[in-house]
Amino acid sequence: MSKSENVRQVEATNAEYLANFDPNLGKLPTPPARKFAILTCMDARMDPAKFAGLSEGDAHVIRNAGGRASDDAIRSLVISYKLLGTKEFFVIHHTDCGMALFNNQIMGDLLSQSLEQAVVDENGWRDVGQGPGSPDGGKIDWLTFTDAREAVIDDVKKIRHHPLIPKNIPIYGYLYDVRSGKLEEIAQATEIGKAV
Amino acid sequence: MSKSENVRQVEATNAEYLANFDPNLGKLPTPPARKFAILTCMDARMDPAKFAGLSEGDAHVIRNAGGRASDDAIRSLVISYKLLGTKEFFVIHHTDCGMALFNNQIMGDLLSQSLEQAVVDENGWRDVGQGPGSPDGGKIDWLTFTDAREAVIDDVKKIRHHPLIPKNIPIYGYLYDVRSGKLEEIAQATEIGKAV
Repeated sequence: MSKSENVRQVEATNAEYLANFDPNLGKLPTPPARKFAILTCMDARMDPAKFAGLSEGDAHVIRNAGGRASDDAIRSLVISYKLLGTKEFFVIHHTDCGMALFNNQIMGDLLSQSLEQAVVDENGWRDVGQGPGSPDGGKIDWLTFTDAREAVIDDVKKIRHHPLIPKNIPIYGYLYDVRSGKLEEIAQATEIGKAV
Repeated sequence: MSKSENVRQVEATNAEYLANFDPNLGKLPTPPARKFAILTCMDARMDPAKFAGLSEGDAHVIRNAGGRASDDAIRSLVISYKLLGTKEFFVIHHTDCGMALFNNQIMGDLLSQSLEQAVVDENGWRDVGQGPGSPDGGKIDWLTFTDAREAVIDDVKKIRHHPLIPKNIPIYGYLYDVRSGKLEEIAQATEIGKAV
């Protein structure tokens, strides 16, 4: 099968990366050297290694739609802390997030019409795909939000109070501005009962 | 409260990033320019932007413990495709993954003893924390694996056959070698019924 442009580009970049690979990187151990984990959004405009200054080997980076403290993000944080030695968590959401552009009702409706791509304009979302869709989209909590700052605080609290997260690990909440590149501190939870 | 060394370093790096921020990055739209999403591991040794050649704005990056096709990763992929215009998915696991160092039984046992950090030596994992622990760790599927190549294929298949993923989106499975930086193609699924 012929390769897509993206596959060709990814493979070509990797060949270059490989050719210039620092042998010391190949000797790094599994636990992160700087002993922290970042939970952030999958958004293409964010590069945590650049905006937060991470070299290979420094920190765990967990990313999903919204940077939400989903059960799976908490699975990853617990593994990060309990087995791989991290001692601080950063939760970093961002401005202009796609998760504020829809809600569970809209997503369920769109997916019930087709699985194909939807379009959005001033009248809202519209499905233009050919069916069939699936009713399963209506059963999922898509973890959308309307206020990015509140969502950071909600997620810091959710992690803070989770029964598998130790009560004294510091959790820092930030908002990243995709227009300026700035990280703004939003919440900090050092122990249950303090701060947020 | 005084700031930790990691917080100080993250904030100092961000101040530099901000000072040198390219104003064109601030104008990027939400949908990724190169229209693809990568699902990969949270492992600190992997920098997808570097080993796969991503600039800010190019692609969604979803990361969790193991790079597994968890329900939450699939939530993110569906949002990426259905609302934000991506048309190809890459699943990238890696060699020497922490997820091969334990299993559900071990993790459940460790968490039942304490929430604090466990240690590992030639006799296996051992909890040295002070209790109490929580029985909740025994109820979670931690999504561990024993064979990294099989895990890539399993995850490509899981995404391919998920009822909310369109049947013709290409899904490419790779294994990243943390010793060399090399991406190795493992699986490719273009349509249900073809390849994996």
